[in-house]
Amino acid sequence: MITSSSNSRMKYVIQLNKKARTRRQERVFVVEGIKMCLEAPREQIQEMYVSESFLADHCNQERLEGFYYEVVSDSVFSKISDTKTPQGILCLVQMPRYTLEDLLGVSVGHWQTDLLPEKADSYGQEAEKCAPHLLILENIQDPGNLGTMLRAGEGAGVTGVIMDGTTVDIFNPKTIRSTMGSLFRVPFYVTDNLSQTVSILKESGVILYAACLDGVQLYDEPDYTMPCGFMIGNEANGLRAETAALADVRIRIPMQGKVESLNAAVASALLMYEASRQRR
Amino acid sequence: MITSSSNSRMKYVIQLNKKARTRRQERVFVVEGIKMCLEAPREQIQEMYVSESFLADHCNQERLEGFYYEVVSDSVFSKISDTKTPQGILCLVQMPRYTLEDLLGVSVGHWQTDLLPEKADSYGQEAEKCAPHLLILENIQDPGNLGTMLRAGEGAGVTGVIMDGTTVDIFNPKTIRSTMGSLFRVPFYVTDNLSQTVSILKESGVILYAACLDGVQLYDEPDYTMPCGFMIGNEANGLRAETAALADVRIRIPMQGKVESLNAAVASALLMYEASRQRR
Repeated sequence: MITSSSNSRMKYVIQLNKKARTRRQERVFVVEGIKMCLEAPREQIQEMYVSESFLADHCNQERLEGFYYEVVSDSVFSKISDTKTPQGILCLVQMPRYTLEDLLGVSVGHWQTDLLPEKADSYGQEAEKCAPHLLILENIQDPGNLGTMLRAGEGAGVTGVIMDGTTVDIFNPKTIRSTMGSLFRVPFYVTDNLSQTVSILKESGVILYAACLDGVQLYDEPDYTMPCGFMIGNEANGLRAETAALADVRIRIPMQGKVESLNAAVASALLMYEASRQRR
Repeated sequence: MITSSSNSRMKYVIQLNKKARTRRQERVFVVEGIKMCLEAPREQIQEMYVSESFLADHCNQERLEGFYYEVVSDSVFSKISDTKTPQGILCLVQMPRYTLEDLLGVSVGHWQTDLLPEKADSYGQEAEKCAPHLLILENIQDPGNLGTMLRAGEGAGVTGVIMDGTTVDIFNPKTIRSTMGSLFRVPFYVTDNLSQTVSILKESGVILYAACLDGVQLYDEPDYTMPCGFMIGNEANGLRAETAALADVRIRIPMQGKVESLNAAVASALLMYEASRQRR
């Protein structure tokens, strides 16, 4: 049993939880809680740690069968955990590697409604057939918002989520928690050059819709049954003008009262679900 | 200038921020930040406090003109503030008193599409004409979720939000922040007897839709142009079975992938905006 938080592995877990840079360097992230650990792709789990109490509570259950884990004292576990009331189980998971093509499907550039690509998924989930349906994020800052977007995105059937380099790290512990497991199932891609990525999407036949307060079309007017991508910007400032200018169509969600804008995750969900509604 | 956090007014502010019970007893809540303070109904503001730094930064601006405020040292302000990086301005605001009739409009029980009631609003906003469109919440626990629901609700044009007694306090500082000002504009009502309140709504002609994972109708199938109310339950467990049974129709939001449920604020927004879309 590990009883000291100066144990090198414990220090490593703490670093992974705290620092996006360490996660990027190691290509590993931390997943906490029994549900999330069981949803993580088994072959991507590198290490697993459980607290004494967790083991005492779950030893006669079969949930941990087949997992190799190390036991950690409760006090050390509370230090390596990112939550106030840890469940007592966490694992280190290898990052998936998706390409932009994974998010778009195989036959990029030749979309027809009767010739739909397979949804690629390097985490090995069941493939689904559908025209690209993307969420494209610029400078999202709230980890909880990002996680909620992935969760709603999976529900709405997006084929992938694209984030610019200034968006909060998708492997932030808060983001991971709020994805409720969608992190393991929705293909995503981080780009350092959003305008270049947007160009590739457009060349591939994806029609891009920028969510703007001054959008010319209402969000439920366009036809989203064709390959589409929704561009959503920063919580306080929305999309940068240069980024919004890259879109094919500027759309807006009508707002009554004196509301100036909607929560970014709410706005994303409304757009993605409108596409889902049309595609049903 | 107030320089001690043992000053009785400062202790009072801290209590109001921390304790829902104190807020209820005093019928007063704390609003922080320049934007929110300026949006608060002027006549409901009881006290205002600004930090030294805030005053130094804003003294030659005219934003505080006409307000009576007291200056507080920066170190004391950081203690009375609920945020990590306080803006340096907060005020104590008297709670509004809405009745269920305010949320329903005046001519309860006689809804016709050509005879729409006025939206009552004790905070003195401009009245709007529309058929009741309610959000009814049971046991929502996340303050941020509740605030996001009010914000999305105002955008979608709800006539009011009803909460049961187990839902997190709407005057929780986190809730207030995430409403982005909608708290001052959306009529709301807290009930200690949700089933009784639901009965009154039904007698008043409101059709109630319970959001359930096993709902029989898809969320975009019913006609929401008539008086309607959406019932949303706890983040982890949804509506209690007894509560869902009170609804006229159980509806569900279809989910792809392996998503088990949506974030409660996202689900609420999808329903309220579907009603808004139909009413446009």
